[in-house]
Amino acid sequence: MFDIIIVGAGPAGLTAALYALRANKKVLILEASNYGGKIINAHKIENYPGINEISGYDFATNLYNQVKKFGGQIVTETVLIINEDKTVVTNKNTYEAKAIIIATGLTDRRLNIENEKEFIGKGVSYCATCDGNFYKNKTVAVVGGGDTAFEDAIYLSDIASKVYLIHHSENFSASEVFIDKLKEKSNVEYILNAKVEKINGSNTLESIDINVDNNKKNIQIDGLFIAIGREPKNEIFSNIVELDEKGYIISNDLKTKVKGIYTAGDVRKKELRQLTTAVSDGSLAATLAIKEMN
Amino acid sequence: MFDIIIVGAGPAGLTAALYALRANKKVLILEASNYGGKIINAHKIENYPGINEISGYDFATNLYNQVKKFGGQIVTETVLIINEDKTVVTNKNTYEAKAIIIATGLTDRRLNIENEKEFIGKGVSYCATCDGNFYKNKTVAVVGGGDTAFEDAIYLSDIASKVYLIHHSENFSASEVFIDKLKEKSNVEYILNAKVEKINGSNTLESIDINVDNNKKNIQIDGLFIAIGREPKNEIFSNIVELDEKGYIISNDLKTKVKGIYTAGDVRKKELRQLTTAVSDGSLAATLAIKEMN
Repeated sequence: MFDIIIVGAGPAGLTAALYALRANKKVLILEASNYGGKIINAHKIENYPGINEISGYDFATNLYNQVKKFGGQIVTETVLIINEDKTVVTNKNTYEAKAIIIATGLTDRRLNIENEKEFIGKGVSYCATCDGNFYKNKTVAVVGGGDTAFEDAIYLSDIASKVYLIHHSENFSASEVFIDKLKEKSNVEYILNAKVEKINGSNTLESIDINVDNNKKNIQIDGLFIAIGREPKNEIFSNIVELDEKGYIISNDLKTKVKGIYTAGDVRKKELRQLTTAVSDGSLAATLAIKEMN
Repeated sequence: MFDIIIVGAGPAGLTAALYALRANKKVLILEASNYGGKIINAHKIENYPGINEISGYDFATNLYNQVKKFGGQIVTETVLIINEDKTVVTNKNTYEAKAIIIATGLTDRRLNIENEKEFIGKGVSYCATCDGNFYKNKTVAVVGGGDTAFEDAIYLSDIASKVYLIHHSENFSASEVFIDKLKEKSNVEYILNAKVEKINGSNTLESIDINVDNNKKNIQIDGLFIAIGREPKNEIFSNIVELDEKGYIISNDLKTKVKGIYTAGDVRKKELRQLTTAVSDGSLAATLAIKEMN
């Protein structure tokens, strides 16, 4: 019997582990692949308070080492189901705990085009708040037509000298309020009925090939922000948590509908997904779990 | 006219500045004394995710330098009043902004006894979640009779070999549920009708002198957790925010009752006061302010 089982070893899950271990609790960390979550692919982080500049890999590794210092260990198993009685069934074992924290994160939806993966952190980004500042007075493009794409374009229009908004249709799913706000920005150009087909560059992104109404074009940009959605993949938890229409876990201050089961980090419905909010969630989820079991 | 005025240069305020500056906003940081807030006095921090171990002074200085890198500057003036029209009057000037973030933190109430200040970080602590783990298998005392004192004693009973709960009365203001939970812990001893009078030690805390029903006693402990309350001092903001019964700012996801005025960090009513939650608040408050003004 564990005190706390943490599902997911990204920043939220590892922070929960850090807090639980320092409170002398018996902790199991389950992770299907590697520690670090999405942040491990970040080329450069410069908005994590207290650390001037660090790669995602170094940040995640430092955090994992910090957890190991207090006796934490990651067990590499895939969670198949979490039951209301707080048993967790993986592909290899069944575990029991007094509390469970779901911190499985999410995946950014990719365009799946040539050079996309290769240029992540070298011109390709999925987070304007994280990486926008790297493109001060430069030219960027945002791909997408929903709220996130418009919010990103609005945000970037204050930083970049020019922002393209590229969308596959003429119709947007974004809220009117965002559409109206973006219209007020003088440095934004819309490229509609367009698909990004290829990313070009030698070491960093230099241009993109797009297909506009079946005409091929090449536009020179410094940064490409892809905002075409995210995939939380929480169906396997639907027996114990409520999901919103996009698949995020709905919580009441991190508490799910099952007593003793909490959620933390990008996986949950929340206003802002940043390292800051992930580690906050992790520390709070662990603290709530500890208080409730003591 | 500033985009955002941030009142308070602790971790929450400086993080808000970092996020606002990276979004290319015009930011004014007002601070009555020094940067860093309460954390600057922390001897050793080992629960901030991604940093193995750091002093509070180094953490705060690193964060301030990070803010300076993006052009942030602290103006050392005391805020006298914030008006609903988002003008801020200090002891020297009047400033105007599109958004204001109140992040003025709080002060821990002290016992005001001999050696208390000298031994902060060397045996004296005001935060069990932060420092409890430094006392693994050691003897600690908690001073206080309210919820925080009982929660701290419960938390510490899992880590320390022995926990004294010292209170000046026989009656507690803590909730029944915490009182009952602490009774279940076998390693807790109550010392009631008692006052701590002096802290003794050469380099670190070694013992405390207490007065129990007018009898002087000396007890040997390794750590003293003082949990006799905090002082948010928010009366000057009462024209623009609602305060709870303890004086904390009540917010709706960091938004106050005045549009464009936000609150962040320890100053607000919240479940957990840690660096993690302070930096989360700072980043979210800035992001909300940016979204609303764009």
